[in-house]
Amino acid sequence: MCKWGVRSATLKELAQEAGKALFDDVSNIPRREVDSLFVGSALAERLAFQSYVAPLVAEQLGVNPTRMLARTELACVSGQSALKMAYMAIATGLSDVALVVGLEKMNTPDMAETQTSMACVLDREWEGVNGMTAPPYFAMVAQRHMHEYGTTQEQLAMVSVKNHRFSATNPFAHFPKEVSMEHVLTSFMIAPPLRLLDCSGITDGAAAVLLAHGDRARTLTDTPVYVEGLGQAANGNLTVNLPSLTSWPAMRKAVGDALKMAGVAVGDLDLAEVHDCFTISEIIEYEELGLCEKGQGGRFIEDGQSEIGGTLPINTRGGLLGCGHPLGATGVAQVVEVVQQFKAQVPRERYVGGEWALCHNLSGNANNHGAVVLRRAS
Amino acid sequence: MCKWGVRSATLKELAQEAGKALFDDVSNIPRREVDSLFVGSALAERLAFQSYVAPLVAEQLGVNPTRMLARTELACVSGQSALKMAYMAIATGLSDVALVVGLEKMNTPDMAETQTSMACVLDREWEGVNGMTAPPYFAMVAQRHMHEYGTTQEQLAMVSVKNHRFSATNPFAHFPKEVSMEHVLTSFMIAPPLRLLDCSGITDGAAAVLLAHGDRARTLTDTPVYVEGLGQAANGNLTVNLPSLTSWPAMRKAVGDALKMAGVAVGDLDLAEVHDCFTISEIIEYEELGLCEKGQGGRFIEDGQSEIGGTLPINTRGGLLGCGHPLGATGVAQVVEVVQQFKAQVPRERYVGGEWALCHNLSGNANNHGAVVLRRAS
Repeated sequence: MCKWGVRSATLKELAQEAGKALFDDVSNIPRREVDSLFVGSALAERLAFQSYVAPLVAEQLGVNPTRMLARTELACVSGQSALKMAYMAIATGLSDVALVVGLEKMNTPDMAETQTSMACVLDREWEGVNGMTAPPYFAMVAQRHMHEYGTTQEQLAMVSVKNHRFSATNPFAHFPKEVSMEHVLTSFMIAPPLRLLDCSGITDGAAAVLLAHGDRARTLTDTPVYVEGLGQAANGNLTVNLPSLTSWPAMRKAVGDALKMAGVAVGDLDLAEVHDCFTISEIIEYEELGLCEKGQGGRFIEDGQSEIGGTLPINTRGGLLGCGHPLGATGVAQVVEVVQQFKAQVPRERYVGGEWALCHNLSGNANNHGAVVLRRAS
Repeated sequence: MCKWGVRSATLKELAQEAGKALFDDVSNIPRREVDSLFVGSALAERLAFQSYVAPLVAEQLGVNPTRMLARTELACVSGQSALKMAYMAIATGLSDVALVVGLEKMNTPDMAETQTSMACVLDREWEGVNGMTAPPYFAMVAQRHMHEYGTTQEQLAMVSVKNHRFSATNPFAHFPKEVSMEHVLTSFMIAPPLRLLDCSGITDGAAAVLLAHGDRARTLTDTPVYVEGLGQAANGNLTVNLPSLTSWPAMRKAVGDALKMAGVAVGDLDLAEVHDCFTISEIIEYEELGLCEKGQGGRFIEDGQSEIGGTLPINTRGGLLGCGHPLGATGVAQVVEVVQQFKAQVPRERYVGGEWALCHNLSGNANNHGAVVLRRAS
């Protein structure tokens, strides 16, 4: 990981920092043995005016991929997509050691350009030009969830309070400090009912992990983490064609497939990183994970069931709300958190450890969901 | 394929046309059975102001990927990268039927924006801002090749004449007409020694193919085409760090790996699609394929060895010079050409058929090369 936040560093420098941290950590492998590179980045062309991102990162990190090289773009699932490509490259034997880098440079000298660029994620002709970016979309989702299930503004705020409590001890987080209920409930209104502290930040950041076959991984670390399950499901991207704002069947399918591939159930998980781009997202995700009945996500956070010691600890790194959300980096950073949890490298106040973890990302208008199930070597 | 050229169609409409042509051709599979989608596009954010390209294409084509979904970006190798991801998804069993779409919308109302955007392919801070786009770079390559090996302007022109002769009968081509040596040698000077007809066009276009496991493919068509070999190799992207302008060891590695995986040699190939972004590129590619000695690529075209009936027929669809070069679409269109050759669906004057074919793409400053070896079902 590199430090996330409003950074003066360029796209390349963010990659450099995360890559250096990785190779410092896995110091017994020379960079020349990295034969593949997959880079997740959502908006590098617009926000960093830089395309051909994978060779740029290769140059910066001093790796020369002789087997596979690509950038993956899938908005907020770009980073997890890169991880999946690396998994497939290893699984097919096309690659022996694959580097995965997620990165995004979002803070630019012209923040109007950043905001405008976010409008090209959804269909620009039908939705982007009408102002449909993430905050107004998820505001509609929240309004609808409140209407259908009686979810409250206070329950939304509790998600932010929990995740900022976790990020307060995360040295990589954009927002490493606690917030109170009052902070959240009086913060600037972005799109009703979502206030500033209901929203993840506009963040610069990068994260990197190394993938290898299990036998090889064991020679590189005492605590390899196995990718045991993958899932992904999507609808098209027009909001008008979504079956519902508050039910995300693609998430159930993606998570279900990943768990099935891993041979475990939700109840076997020790922790989960889910995509809290907005507070309402995490509440719906509790429901779609099957941790509670549909509509009871608000009650779930209110009852402390997503805290450490609850039904399932969620977003112990601080989530997108606490860490910020550099689009392409988020999915990779979730995996870093799981690895650090499994290695007991996180502060005591947010340590869970355990053996099984889930990472979940969504993108666009929640039309696309991806899931990865990870296992700690026993 | 859709018709390539300067199209009034939008990015979505290009995808729509190529997708419709595909599903018209493979009519015995319902779209709902497509469980994965991989989209290759190099510059959609800048040239079409549209990110999140894969869900956009899914929406447009009426497919709902329930297993895998991503866009790949790797400049001029974006399309071939999408094909490789689809291959890996099928090979790992993560997908049963994967749709691959390559597309690019390059002609915009503001062509200065298009030209500027091309400068973000190479490292913008070091090379893009200094005007290092493809034409001046490959002009340097040509100058150097002429200096080292005595390659002539006429030999360069012969590549263009050959490829335009092929594209003259290709209904999808941007430039479906023959050009004479005089046409090429008197065309507008772009970057010495490269003239307009030494350069591939700024083209709008899309292409699509469907991948499935071999057993499944046999139920969809009488003439499945097997992906038998894959290779890719890259250096970083700074020109100053390239070992040579005129030798492309990454191409030898990528092609060598793909052939080795397929268990064949260059001499076993019946045809090859190689990346003639400029005439000089194809000449160097003859050499790196091992079809002639280093430096003898000019002589190879002069002797007609890349014509049908020669050592190896090259670029029978018309190549990038004849068909144009919509960046993300080119790699997929090469595969379409091979499929149509194997199915004898091309006009008699450019028919080769055969059993083994190679597709090659390069990107950036030729620092990255990819190769795919295809085989016709016997």
